Amino acid sequence: MLVIGEKINASIKSIAEAIANRNDEYLANLARDQANAGANFIDVNTGSGQGLHSDEIAAMKWLVDVVQNATDKPLAIDSDSPDMIETGLKQYRGEKVMINSVTAEIPRLEAVGPLAAERQASIIALAMGAEGIPDSVDKRLAACDVIMTKLTGFGIKPEDIYFDPLVLPIAVDARQGQVTLKTIEQIKQRFPDAKTVMGLSNVSYGLPVRKLINRTFLIMAAYAGLDAVIINPLDTKAMSFIKVADIITGKDPSCRAYLRAHRQGTIVE
Amino acid sequence: MLVIGEKINASIKSIAEAIANRNDEYLANLARDQANAGANFIDVNTGSGQGLHSDEIAAMKWLVDVVQNATDKPLAIDSDSPDMIETGLKQYRGEKVMINSVTAEIPRLEAVGPLAAERQASIIALAMGAEGIPDSVDKRLAACDVIMTKLTGFGIKPEDIYFDPLVLPIAVDARQGQVTLKTIEQIKQRFPDAKTVMGLSNVSYGLPVRKLINRTFLIMAAYAGLDAVIINPLDTKAMSFIKVADIITGKDPSCRAYLRAHRQGTIVE
Repeated sequence: MLVIGEKINASIKSIAEAIANRNDEYLANLARDQANAGANFIDVNTGSGQGLHSDEIAAMKWLVDVVQNATDKPLAIDSDSPDMIETGLKQYRGEKVMINSVTAEIPRLEAVGPLAAERQASIIALAMGAEGIPDSVDKRLAACDVIMTKLTGFGIKPEDIYFDPLVLPIAVDARQGQVTLKTIEQIKQRFPDAKTVMGLSNVSYGLPVRKLINRTFLIMAAYAGLDAVIINPLDTKAMSFIKVADIITGKDPSCRAYLRAHRQGTIVE
Repeated sequence: MLVIGEKINASIKSIAEAIANRNDEYLANLARDQANAGANFIDVNTGSGQGLHSDEIAAMKWLVDVVQNATDKPLAIDSDSPDMIETGLKQYRGEKVMINSVTAEIPRLEAVGPLAAERQASIIALAMGAEGIPDSVDKRLAACDVIMTKLTGFGIKPEDIYFDPLVLPIAVDARQGQVTLKTIEQIKQRFPDAKTVMGLSNVSYGLPVRKLINRTFLIMAAYAGLDAVIINPLDTKAMSFIKVADIITGKDPSCRAYLRAHRQGTIVE
């Protein structure tokens, strides 16, 4: 499974402070630590879009430089704002890059799609429109249809599209776990070349021992067809489960990656 | 998920010794501990069938008495031998009981089927014939067809049949994990009223950190449709994962069992 390291995100208070204070050492270390722990992409998110636009543009340029100077791993430029995504993409020198994210909202697709196409970027696409997260599989697939049509229209290859099925808290409605997992299955059936990606923390919102719930859900999602996960790669337990899931889902058929990780001491119960 | 406590099994050396020495206190405690830890059934297995027949019959009678005097939880009478199963069933006073196990082998079905029907016992049925564990989903389903026809012919209800899809070590052939999981899905589709059950230890044979692999496989199996598991209920980590899987698969839709277990301190990461 592809691992997108989620740690450099300004919605986390310590990260927002490190960005505001231009604490490059702290953030560079966090990038390196995630890379060393097995992240395939390093997500970079500079904030909520509530500050001054010029400040945010400057922060994105600075942060992309800090991370690209710290690691060779490709970046995932993470913002709701097409402007910020464009800024991040322009600042980033790497060949491979990911955009996080678009939705089925047409203005956002039309703003970000051409940027992704030009850069041959991978692009995370949330299975939702302007009305928020749909509560059914069918409505989420309808959003994916819109996204697939629009993005391939810009020349983006289906294999570069990472659909996020989205997940609502099971504490509010336990059926929502199944809705997400079935959405993954259906996306893989309907768009066999497209990828799937997911963040985990929403699923366990409102329940105790959240990491246990997140990990359980991750393993079920892997079986349902999840290709990538947005996660803290320093969570060695979760990373260990991913390594096992890779064997069972055929991504590590000779157990080579699992045994190598075990020799390195990173497989834990 | 239904939990069948696997600890009282004479293939474990300490258990074989406790049975040989008629150490009733040790075995009674093991029965109680498993019941307290959440086992729904207590498996009782008195050995490999390599001793004197009269000795084994005596051991089964004695062991069933020890366990039924120690706990109110129903027993799973575990033997390859129809004679031993009959002995265990006769000795057991409880109303609810499980038989572990039959295969698609006709003589075994014809010997054990009528016993199960008469007692209205649940019955574990391995998806294999005389040739050992088949390597494909279709061959395992063919074994299930034979079993379903035969057992329902004796008047056993489909909902009392627990099909074990069986699992081969993924270290030898990683695809075998998928074969087992797809077999579970197919059994649930083909026989919607029948149940599925599985032991876990085979899947991780030959690999390090086996418990991690067993747990990952258990969670995937839960999503694929597993109804029951033969497991050590004193493994609190595995039991915690089962509690989460129950929420997501709709068996604990209001998270009540999960939250109760959390209050009791038995939910661990």
